[in-house]
Amino acid sequence: MADYGGNQTAVRIGDRFWSAFRETAAREGIPYQWKALNDAVPDAAPSGCMRNFRIAAGREQGGHAGFVFQDSDAYKWLEGVAFSLRWRPDPALEAVADGAIAEIAAAQQPDGYLDTYYIINGLDKRWTNLKDHHELYCAGHMIEAAVAYYQATGKRVLLDAAIRLAAHIDSVIGPEEGKIHGYPGHPVIEMALMRLYGVTKDPMHLRLAKYFVDERGKSPLFFEEEDRRQNRRNYWADGPHGYAYYQAAQPVREQKDAVGHSVRAMYLYSGMADVARETGDESLKEACRTLWRSTARRRMYVTGAVGSTEYGEAFSFDYDLPSDTVYGETCAAIGLVFFARRMLSLETKGEYADVMERALYNGVLSGMQLDGKRFFYVNPLEVVPEACEKDPHKRHVKPERQKWFGCACCPPNLIRLLASLEDYVCSAAGDALYIHLYAGGEIRADVGGTMALSVETDYPWDGAVRVCVAEAPAGEKTLALRVPGWCRRWSLAVNGEIVTVAPEDGYVSLKRVWRAGDVVELALDMPARYVRSAPKVRENAGRVALTRGPVVYCLEEADNGAALHMVRAGGAPRAETAWRPDLLGGVVAITTAGLREKDDGWGETLYDDRPAPAAEETPLHWIPYYAWANRGVGEMRVWIRE
Amino acid sequence: MADYGGNQTAVRIGDRFWSAFRETAAREGIPYQWKALNDAVPDAAPSGCMRNFRIAAGREQGGHAGFVFQDSDAYKWLEGVAFSLRWRPDPALEAVADGAIAEIAAAQQPDGYLDTYYIINGLDKRWTNLKDHHELYCAGHMIEAAVAYYQATGKRVLLDAAIRLAAHIDSVIGPEEGKIHGYPGHPVIEMALMRLYGVTKDPMHLRLAKYFVDERGKSPLFFEEEDRRQNRRNYWADGPHGYAYYQAAQPVREQKDAVGHSVRAMYLYSGMADVARETGDESLKEACRTLWRSTARRRMYVTGAVGSTEYGEAFSFDYDLPSDTVYGETCAAIGLVFFARRMLSLETKGEYADVMERALYNGVLSGMQLDGKRFFYVNPLEVVPEACEKDPHKRHVKPERQKWFGCACCPPNLIRLLASLEDYVCSAAGDALYIHLYAGGEIRADVGGTMALSVETDYPWDGAVRVCVAEAPAGEKTLALRVPGWCRRWSLAVNGEIVTVAPEDGYVSLKRVWRAGDVVELALDMPARYVRSAPKVRENAGRVALTRGPVVYCLEEADNGAALHMVRAGGAPRAETAWRPDLLGGVVAITTAGLREKDDGWGETLYDDRPAPAAEETPLHWIPYYAWANRGVGEMRVWIRE
Repeated sequence: MADYGGNQTAVRIGDRFWSAFRETAAREGIPYQWKALNDAVPDAAPSGCMRNFRIAAGREQGGHAGFVFQDSDAYKWLEGVAFSLRWRPDPALEAVADGAIAEIAAAQQPDGYLDTYYIINGLDKRWTNLKDHHELYCAGHMIEAAVAYYQATGKRVLLDAAIRLAAHIDSVIGPEEGKIHGYPGHPVIEMALMRLYGVTKDPMHLRLAKYFVDERGKSPLFFEEEDRRQNRRNYWADGPHGYAYYQAAQPVREQKDAVGHSVRAMYLYSGMADVARETGDESLKEACRTLWRSTARRRMYVTGAVGSTEYGEAFSFDYDLPSDTVYGETCAAIGLVFFARRMLSLETKGEYADVMERALYNGVLSGMQLDGKRFFYVNPLEVVPEACEKDPHKRHVKPERQKWFGCACCPPNLIRLLASLEDYVCSAAGDALYIHLYAGGEIRADVGGTMALSVETDYPWDGAVRVCVAEAPAGEKTLALRVPGWCRRWSLAVNGEIVTVAPEDGYVSLKRVWRAGDVVELALDMPARYVRSAPKVRENAGRVALTRGPVVYCLEEADNGAALHMVRAGGAPRAETAWRPDLLGGVVAITTAGLREKDDGWGETLYDDRPAPAAEETPLHWIPYYAWANRGVGEMRVWIRE
Repeated sequence: MADYGGNQTAVRIGDRFWSAFRETAAREGIPYQWKALNDAVPDAAPSGCMRNFRIAAGREQGGHAGFVFQDSDAYKWLEGVAFSLRWRPDPALEAVADGAIAEIAAAQQPDGYLDTYYIINGLDKRWTNLKDHHELYCAGHMIEAAVAYYQATGKRVLLDAAIRLAAHIDSVIGPEEGKIHGYPGHPVIEMALMRLYGVTKDPMHLRLAKYFVDERGKSPLFFEEEDRRQNRRNYWADGPHGYAYYQAAQPVREQKDAVGHSVRAMYLYSGMADVARETGDESLKEACRTLWRSTARRRMYVTGAVGSTEYGEAFSFDYDLPSDTVYGETCAAIGLVFFARRMLSLETKGEYADVMERALYNGVLSGMQLDGKRFFYVNPLEVVPEACEKDPHKRHVKPERQKWFGCACCPPNLIRLLASLEDYVCSAAGDALYIHLYAGGEIRADVGGTMALSVETDYPWDGAVRVCVAEAPAGEKTLALRVPGWCRRWSLAVNGEIVTVAPEDGYVSLKRVWRAGDVVELALDMPARYVRSAPKVRENAGRVALTRGPVVYCLEEADNGAALHMVRAGGAPRAETAWRPDLLGGVVAITTAGLREKDDGWGETLYDDRPAPAAEETPLHWIPYYAWANRGVGEMRVWIRE
């Protein structure tokens, strides 16, 4: 498993909700994406990714195809494969992966360098554009894939290549005289080196990760000097971003706001948290907390999407959360899950798990079509298809998922996250086991001896969670269950007896001597309810969104007709919830008593002093937001007028 | 006066409202703009306009400065001067204008050609880029200035130059073999030639205007062929506009929607209406009506602004009227006034005058600072200064007016409109005099003999209009007064006796034998009231805007604090109106009893299932929209939640 610190845990997920997604991702998504990486999906944007490795290895002729970061698609796919092999052995798939790894390893240079863009286009130019050319980004994803594949299969080919690549980077970049005093334009290598360090315990890997974090944004600014040396102009100089696009306008400990490209931000903050956890650096921990608060308390959508503007795929400013022009890249929501998981490993606070859960069930899952074959890059909260077509400032918003992307970061990212969900369910420290996410299955954790649990739940559709102790070590141990921030009423019972205990930092802790056969039952009350935004969120003033448990709902034209702006909540939800096995792969759908304003009789004038339009009671049919756009093109809306 | 068909009229405006604006425009704006055209305004964007003419005439050395259409700024300025000289004789100003005309005339080529961009950069390239290089646009403004200056002063220097320029164009462009079968990328010459025709009665001038209208958009598309010949790519090909940016995707009689660059659209439709009026072409009249309905009934802001998107400064699609990302160029609102005035000359319907009035008092006037020295290009209906700075898709929206613009179309355009307001007040046809706009002053009109009226009113602040007959011809004549579409209750009296007469097409007609001393009193009830948008306008669902008479109001941070999104109308306006001579040059300010939501105690979370925020009654202090941004930078909002 991935190493986020703490004691060993091992999780098997086997519930209805996640198993379906994960099985789809593994069965459909992984083979589909392998085809995409090899340009075998008809009518999809071409990739050239695997061919680049063969060209770099001298096995094929041709030029480099795609973006400078094209290699990363293969690495993320491999990492997804590795994670899936942990719970879904598949010798045929493993053989394909071994083949891919062989092609990748063949492209690696004798000095350890590995980036097909420069191997093909000329090694003399390598390491001259750390800001925009993603060599460290590709290296980071390569290292992550290598660690995951090693941990899943025990095979070292890619791991050894990763260790050579890290050694090469260490020989080129660092504080020493004669080395480049730089850092990546697109973070990820920080997280990657920390995972590599978890396996190798080589101090160099930790030192290099720490260097990238500490050096970033220091004055004189490396990126500025690099631009000057290469006679380049910073593309972002004219807009509001500047070097903050790269989260490099200041040293990380001086940064107060989540800024710039939102995926880069999430990856950087995640790497910072990894380094802070390992080193215990208090100033870095505090920087992580500051950036967390900026992200989660002032710049995050109700779906866990982040990135309010298409310009730079970036954060904008506090409380600026437009639903219709949002960027909300799938990768950024995934990055927020990374960040949240790492903050949990710094300190077990429910706020982090709440956000992790919010992003997972909404802004992350929405990225994938239910059949695992099409993907969203942008995840809007309000769509009018005509506007996507005719308003140039909404053209990044698509009313339907795409087969593949020239810049294909999101699909493999989503699949590797789904395939590694085990790493997000719980953590253990000292004598305590913390359950963060409620997924049915089994948990084994070291709490000074092995504690084994089975978890039964129909979460997120039902708030009942039954935890059975299968094995417990001697002595008092703590089992801590998260009480989600969205939950107002809940009850807890041990072996059938109600236990009254106040949650602390979002977790209820049961400290006792556990015995096999003990049963803990948590019942989370999960009514459908309307939530509001903080009053400073201009775009949502006077609006509500329907949620139930961790799931955010939306209205679609398919169920409610068009002109969704004329729909109103009309007071308390008075909701009927129903499990609909036939609908969208099986969802709890919700019907509320709402209002629809009528426009009949308004006529042709545009403006008039008429009374408020008559509204008639109408049932509003809500579906989980993540499942929108699976039934053709139409309007969709999360926030409606109250 | 300008010739919009019908009988002769002569108007003198002398009321409190318009005189102030017009005097400011003439006293401050005209000299200021002359300085700007001569690069004598410190810290303002440079123009180079007049210098270009001297360079083209060989009187100075240097390159062409500014845009390809830089010449038009001088022409629009001259036209404004000409109009102002009609009611505000100023020998010193006239001498300056004569000097400018001499410089312009000196640049004209022996063959009649006149465009400094090509004279300076090489005449061999002229007429090769009708689509984007604005030679016909500049020619159009030159002709308009020439006609206006001739009509105001009787001087023919510029008029003769214009006649030579028109002859040159006729020798180069037209249906005949060997001529270019083209038309302007930016219309205006259609209107201009019709005005020239009004003076010269030269059939060629009418024929050429008609040719430009009829040829436009025909297949094979001239612009497409021109692009191909010159190996150019249409800049707008990738977006939703294509050649519709130029209103050239179809023949004008087949166009159903107001599309593309909004100023070009308004100018084209105005020229079409001119040609339709003069030729009586029914199919062209119907095309004008169709495009009018698209503009005024589906694509116009409550302020009379048009152009919903910054991309192409253009129309977008039906009912797409966002307040905060609007373009709403001052020139486009001016163009809408042109269009409306010409539709009135096709058929006297109140709808046209209603829109003309709406644009004039709101989206046009807002373009100028009250001191006449700063100007808006973009006229938003909702501004949050932080968003203008930090949201790249709102950077075209400025929270304060600018000194001058590199592309300085709006300031002189606004001044020439204000200076020619006489031409919009009334029209006469047969035995009838129609009053469209209520401005205090005097009207003389030919209704089969001269009818002379004096008009007393404090419009738009008061709805009482007193019309005194000073002179009347023998026999029955019709005096038709417009009852604005916004007016619900009104009364009419002749010589103190109430007259009951139903308005027809927005006008009440009094047909009788008039005698000097007759007094007609129209009392228009003018309460402050909230208006709504048509239900299809998504952005304004659940919102109201305050209006009083023709004036649209807004809330400013200066009077109401920031966070205006938290303000609500809270039911009927219960308004107090007050004449405030001290405020913004003298306005009727309105205070309504509204609500302000409180955010105290919400805390740091972004989303929660709380009840609607408490709202406390608060007076809302409204000012006329046109006067916003005269007291420093702050939030502004027209539409508020009900």
